[in-house]
Amino acid sequence: MTTLTIAEAELLCERAIRSAGGSEQAARSLARQTVMAECFDQPNNGVVHLFDYLTSIQEGRIDGNAVPNITRPAPAMIHSDAGGGLAQTGFDIALEQLVAAARELGMAVFLQRNSYTCGPLGTFAWRLAKEGLIAFAGTNGPPLLAGSGSKDAVFCTNPMAFAAPQADGSPLLIDQSSSATAFANIRAAAHEGKSIPPGWAIDADGNPTTDPHAAMKGAMLAFGGSRGANIALMIEILSAGLTGANWGLDAPSYLSGHESPGTGMFVVAIDPVAIDPQFGQRLSAQLKRLSEGHGVHLPGISKGASVERSERNGID
Amino acid sequence: MTTLTIAEAELLCERAIRSAGGSEQAARSLARQTVMAECFDQPNNGVVHLFDYLTSIQEGRIDGNAVPNITRPAPAMIHSDAGGGLAQTGFDIALEQLVAAARELGMAVFLQRNSYTCGPLGTFAWRLAKEGLIAFAGTNGPPLLAGSGSKDAVFCTNPMAFAAPQADGSPLLIDQSSSATAFANIRAAAHEGKSIPPGWAIDADGNPTTDPHAAMKGAMLAFGGSRGANIALMIEILSAGLTGANWGLDAPSYLSGHESPGTGMFVVAIDPVAIDPQFGQRLSAQLKRLSEGHGVHLPGISKGASVERSERNGID
Repeated sequence: MTTLTIAEAELLCERAIRSAGGSEQAARSLARQTVMAECFDQPNNGVVHLFDYLTSIQEGRIDGNAVPNITRPAPAMIHSDAGGGLAQTGFDIALEQLVAAARELGMAVFLQRNSYTCGPLGTFAWRLAKEGLIAFAGTNGPPLLAGSGSKDAVFCTNPMAFAAPQADGSPLLIDQSSSATAFANIRAAAHEGKSIPPGWAIDADGNPTTDPHAAMKGAMLAFGGSRGANIALMIEILSAGLTGANWGLDAPSYLSGHESPGTGMFVVAIDPVAIDPQFGQRLSAQLKRLSEGHGVHLPGISKGASVERSERNGID
Repeated sequence: MTTLTIAEAELLCERAIRSAGGSEQAARSLARQTVMAECFDQPNNGVVHLFDYLTSIQEGRIDGNAVPNITRPAPAMIHSDAGGGLAQTGFDIALEQLVAAARELGMAVFLQRNSYTCGPLGTFAWRLAKEGLIAFAGTNGPPLLAGSGSKDAVFCTNPMAFAAPQADGSPLLIDQSSSATAFANIRAAAHEGKSIPPGWAIDADGNPTTDPHAAMKGAMLAFGGSRGANIALMIEILSAGLTGANWGLDAPSYLSGHESPGTGMFVVAIDPVAIDPQFGQRLSAQLKRLSEGHGVHLPGISKGASVERSERNGID
């Protein structure tokens, strides 16, 4: 077993991305997020997932040399057409402008269309919270998830992320999909010959199933029934409808074929200091009260150690 | 049975509010929302709920003569201190400014603290969508809902609303609480001597219960487990933390005592036309495809007739 520093890991990823045909900017942006996912203890979103990107560059689903077209359709809106390239590149180029706009106006939004899937969404929200901003983000992709009452998949897992800066410690981070479970859990149950709980999936005919094999031919279900499915619909409208990206139903696969999924994302940034310079202190006190006084499990807390590790190593 | 026109119903409500001690502006704002809730087929949020307001004005939980202090801490932020009065009044006063800011900057947010509970949240989002804007709103209140893993109530039902304008027909409207069910359903089960499903509530000791009587002494649970509870936490941070309102845990009751709950709300407004003048057409086509082609149950669709009725009568 070899242990790499953050810098070594990033360099290794960058070289792999360059070799696959990615531009220097693409390599830097994707390598950064890949290593950040590892630091967040999300290995499935880290180096393992990088291989999907490398294959997709080679097979034409990602234009490794795309240059995002960043425009400013309105003072509080920064828009990126990723040109069939990576989602990460456009965000990295726009980040400084987004932070400045949020600080100047109180809030601003990054809206991107025409990209490959964006990887772990929480990383985008996290980076804004490290700048002292509250962030709310979402993204869409090719269909995996049934809508409320639908018989087949009409949305991707359509995750949302929320991050808020604290005076004490790392930002609060919520990073969750709109599905009842991760697809990997259904696949694992199939491998182990176990059944899956009701509420996770429907079969190819649109009927509820506890058979993981039938589930993999059907569609995943949203968390919490129609309320979760409504969240997926909201994320779809903001990340695809508002940005001008492909709706999930129109998005080519991100794992096969030669076309970009052409999907979208949004990241809202809000400056809490415009209202109250003590926001971070109040949030820290409140989260401590919820956690220590009432036993609330705060999202992201279990990842604390890794997140701190990433911070010590400059991944922020 | 007497049938009233919209105008007659509003006038009747206004008179009742004035008689209870509400100012002219308070009467106008609250009457408008009360009748709008009736038109939305939400009678529990309509005239029935108005009596809670009247009692609260008389008992001092609502300052019927409060004048909201509206400020502009940043170009895209309109802040209201409701001064212990109604939530509806501050929003009505700020609405024109909010719409103008969203059109000029691409997006803007209304942030309010120190008010009574805001009634049906969807009405605020709806009114922005009628102006061609996408809206995302949330509000907090005194504790009713457990957090993820907590043994007691730490949040109100913390609802969220989302609305988006369509070229054809009424706006899409999502208006849902963060709880697995409405408190009224637990109360109804208790009256009927029926048990409640697992996942709705915990008892006073923090244990899961299917006994509605035990549930009413305990706390409600979020929809979809920890993911729904995380949404409640996000809504709490945006509606109380960002605005400077009371956290739910610090909010006096809205049904007894003599103090304002002092809670908060946020309403984000986004102008989709800044990106694409055809947004409304694209959304209409997509919602039609989801609904007719894939059987998706769109939120608000069942209320279509009433909403149209309210529009014909100028409630928009």
